[in-house]
Amino acid sequence: MSHSDVVSAVTAAREAGEPDRLVDLVPYARFLGVSFELSAGDSLFRLPFRDSHIGNPHLPALHGGLMGAFMESAAILDLLWRQEALAVPKVVDFAIDYLRPGRPQDLFAGCDIRRQGKRVANVGITAWQADDAGTPRTIATARSHFLVGEASASGG
Amino acid sequence: MSHSDVVSAVTAAREAGEPDRLVDLVPYARFLGVSFELSAGDSLFRLPFRDSHIGNPHLPALHGGLMGAFMESAAILDLLWRQEALAVPKVVDFAIDYLRPGRPQDLFAGCDIRRQGKRVANVGITAWQADDAGTPRTIATARSHFLVGEASASGG
Repeated sequence: MSHSDVVSAVTAAREAGEPDRLVDLVPYARFLGVSFELSAGDSLFRLPFRDSHIGNPHLPALHGGLMGAFMESAAILDLLWRQEALAVPKVVDFAIDYLRPGRPQDLFAGCDIRRQGKRVANVGITAWQADDAGTPRTIATARSHFLVGEASASGG
Repeated sequence: MSHSDVVSAVTAAREAGEPDRLVDLVPYARFLGVSFELSAGDSLFRLPFRDSHIGNPHLPALHGGLMGAFMESAAILDLLWRQEALAVPKVVDFAIDYLRPGRPQDLFAGCDIRRQGKRVANVGITAWQADDAGTPRTIATARSHFLVGEASASGG
């Protein structure tokens, strides 16, 4: 996939108002079944539950690394949707705190682009699930830096 | 899977000297195709390459979150193999620095249990790939804390 393919895909998704189309730009996110919609202007990401997503069958609990991968994908997709440069961001670092075990059910995430510079973006990501009463409970929080802009598109 | 199932599986793997058997205790690691062998006494983990592991098709590069999930799985498996308590460790946090793009090929990892207390273990993880000349090059480094021991087995 060339840089101009990415530009075309992002432009088309934005014009159609369909962020979910961007998932096709990140094969691993598509493979996980991630979906991306807007809710009152905010990005809302969903990771559908699968048995293969279990990390600890004793609890059982979602695999922590999988949750991290989902949240990192969410940040990439959020930047693709909102950033000025039409290039796939390159991750620099990622740090996650696990607050509760992930239950064997769908996981949701939202993103907060805390700073978007010309070269680096700082993104906070929160993941949650509904408890038995349907109340959202935070499962994990993370923050990540990404290289963005044209330098990222050329691999530098 | 009960706590005694985990104890039996870990005991059997250790007695047989076959660490790869432990991968069955972590469904998501098995799903990724992770393998676990010993090399001169050190743990050696491998993530086989698949097209669905691509995060950035423009480079192309392995998905960063997938690399993190693999490295977190490696730490869990290394603790299962080496720690005193026969329980699946529970991850507390995980921080990764991405040093080079992951090439579309197998990724390897090794672990260093830096501190193992009664309740918490600190593990460093390094991931690498061979370059064109076959020389190993570090792709990412990470560190993670885990709850270990009996408290972890009872979900606390």
